[in-house]
Amino acid sequence: MAVDDTQGTFEKIGSCTVENLKLDSGKVMPDAGQMYAMYGAPEPDGSNVVLVCHAMTGSHHLAGPDVPGLPKGWIEPLVGLGKALDTRRLCVICVNNLCSPYGSVSPLSLNSETGRPLGMAFPVITPRDVARAQKLALESIGIKKIRLVMGGSFGGMIALEHAMSFPEDVENCAVIAAPARLYPQAIAFNEVQRKAILSDPDWKNGDYYPGFGPERGLATARMLAMITYRSEQSFSGRWMRSMTDDNADPHEWGSKFKVESYLDHHGSELVSRFDANCYLYTTRAMDLHDVSSGRGSLDEAFSLLKDRGVMAVGISSDILFPNWQVMEIARLAGKRGAKADYEEIDSDNGHDAFLIDFDQMDEILRFFMKERRI
Amino acid sequence: MAVDDTQGTFEKIGSCTVENLKLDSGKVMPDAGQMYAMYGAPEPDGSNVVLVCHAMTGSHHLAGPDVPGLPKGWIEPLVGLGKALDTRRLCVICVNNLCSPYGSVSPLSLNSETGRPLGMAFPVITPRDVARAQKLALESIGIKKIRLVMGGSFGGMIALEHAMSFPEDVENCAVIAAPARLYPQAIAFNEVQRKAILSDPDWKNGDYYPGFGPERGLATARMLAMITYRSEQSFSGRWMRSMTDDNADPHEWGSKFKVESYLDHHGSELVSRFDANCYLYTTRAMDLHDVSSGRGSLDEAFSLLKDRGVMAVGISSDILFPNWQVMEIARLAGKRGAKADYEEIDSDNGHDAFLIDFDQMDEILRFFMKERRI
Repeated sequence: MAVDDTQGTFEKIGSCTVENLKLDSGKVMPDAGQMYAMYGAPEPDGSNVVLVCHAMTGSHHLAGPDVPGLPKGWIEPLVGLGKALDTRRLCVICVNNLCSPYGSVSPLSLNSETGRPLGMAFPVITPRDVARAQKLALESIGIKKIRLVMGGSFGGMIALEHAMSFPEDVENCAVIAAPARLYPQAIAFNEVQRKAILSDPDWKNGDYYPGFGPERGLATARMLAMITYRSEQSFSGRWMRSMTDDNADPHEWGSKFKVESYLDHHGSELVSRFDANCYLYTTRAMDLHDVSSGRGSLDEAFSLLKDRGVMAVGISSDILFPNWQVMEIARLAGKRGAKADYEEIDSDNGHDAFLIDFDQMDEILRFFMKERRI
Repeated sequence: MAVDDTQGTFEKIGSCTVENLKLDSGKVMPDAGQMYAMYGAPEPDGSNVVLVCHAMTGSHHLAGPDVPGLPKGWIEPLVGLGKALDTRRLCVICVNNLCSPYGSVSPLSLNSETGRPLGMAFPVITPRDVARAQKLALESIGIKKIRLVMGGSFGGMIALEHAMSFPEDVENCAVIAAPARLYPQAIAFNEVQRKAILSDPDWKNGDYYPGFGPERGLATARMLAMITYRSEQSFSGRWMRSMTDDNADPHEWGSKFKVESYLDHHGSELVSRFDANCYLYTTRAMDLHDVSSGRGSLDEAFSLLKDRGVMAVGISSDILFPNWQVMEIARLAGKRGAKADYEEIDSDNGHDAFLIDFDQMDEILRFFMKERRI
């Protein structure tokens, strides 16, 4: 019989609202409602608070029994009793990102004037905006200090922004498979994904609610994203050139390579659970990720991490955010006086290794927490 | 004053038809009409014939003054008087690929019964079919022996198939930036490109003629392809995170990074000169590239090259067909008794380096031709 590893750990799902949230664009969001999940209880001094930032299509639900309407816990092997993020002594929190379709304010939120979803009237945001909204949300529930903030991919960008935006409150930061700024190839991959959505006539300038929306465009976008989340090694190792049906004639259009069927599956899966406008906003937020923006230079941005603990974790086979982009974080942080480490997940699983190779994630996280006495 | 380097080299553009062309699928194409370009004159014994195979969206027009309706000569610096492919002594030929929109039989060809373009009634073909059609086309104009066959990317796959399908007639083969078989990541990139076209309602099951066709889908496909044709180094080196307008607010949807504008430009450019159904067929032909197919194994396929000259040319920054895939050709050919070399273009330009770094192409080609006494 399977044992629920989070047994005894209460997952509290809550919500809170930040009023008049200032955005990097200069705009102000009147009511930034945000959902969060909390595992374990915070110490009054915040000394046991670990903030986990989720990736692009993830949610605040990290671990434990399924929650209706939310994707499965994506970091289950790391959160719970006796796990690396041990909920007997740590309070692990994840706030749903702005512009996620899983409950925080997003293009799905209703326009108070029209009563219809905001769609493209939602403002363009940045990972720094997401971090700011989350920090204020935590403060609104009495949590000011953060012992460790961590995240992978888009979550890693947000985690880094937490550490740089609130150095007085954030002691340690673990950035996994994310860069200090988006390099142009990643912007290019995002742009093609957006183009697939924007070109779909069902997108209707973002005003497709409550209809089906640009399902084909979103599926195509996700298919491309999946290539960048994996690697040639993982595709070759699993399927090489196998077809879904050994008896199919490869010279007929209906025949499919297994890798094609895999992409199709992931396209449909995302369409069943995500929103196309949220996808547009999240990828654009990622494009705008640049810790040097408004801080003078990269070096000056990293000087904000002086004396803080910083761990950058790259993935050997990552083609989306190659390991040298992650190393850059450790190098720049170390140069400016942070206690900086670089660790690497040695895996053929590509960018998604941080969601797959939990044995290595566990080891790396325990090492960092021990070193930083968390 | 610029000097026309092909001065004195007559570019002859001709056409010929192969009747009852047998395809790998088992189908028979009644009339496989093909266009070709010829520079220089063939010796009666074929000892000076160089066959160049063109890439996916290229054409048979290799060099010299522009030809209406065809893209610019794509290998101009290598073909002409005194160039590596010296047209004073060599006869350089390029046959337009099957399923190219530039004149050979393709989905644009008219269905004799309906008088309308074939569209998706065109049969699925393979690089081996393309090579077979070209070989028979050359024989129909009196050319049997080929001293050297060469090509890059899709053209490299076709060149390799020429050498393996007709080893008695093909003495040397240069394969540039192409693998012995398509690996699954490349199939995946092709599939997403096709999905963008197939998802466009203007595709109309391929029966969109003479209308505009799936322009948005084709543009999206090309945008993705362009990412795989270049590299992070080339994008970072040229633009890093620059925007097209320094005064634009990056938090507005209308603002664009230069890399986005670059992709847009290439999407539109291809739409203005290519056909979406031809794009579908060409990418599928590429997916089906596998020299081992029908030949027992990779090793057995390469044994067909025994005693032939084989040069495989990889590109250091190629993300579409990484250099290890190209090395595999030289390794397997050498193992089976070919005179095999591996050379590498050291460039940040990515897959397209074979269309850009002509100084290195020139050097590598001259080296190989000297070694093989061509």
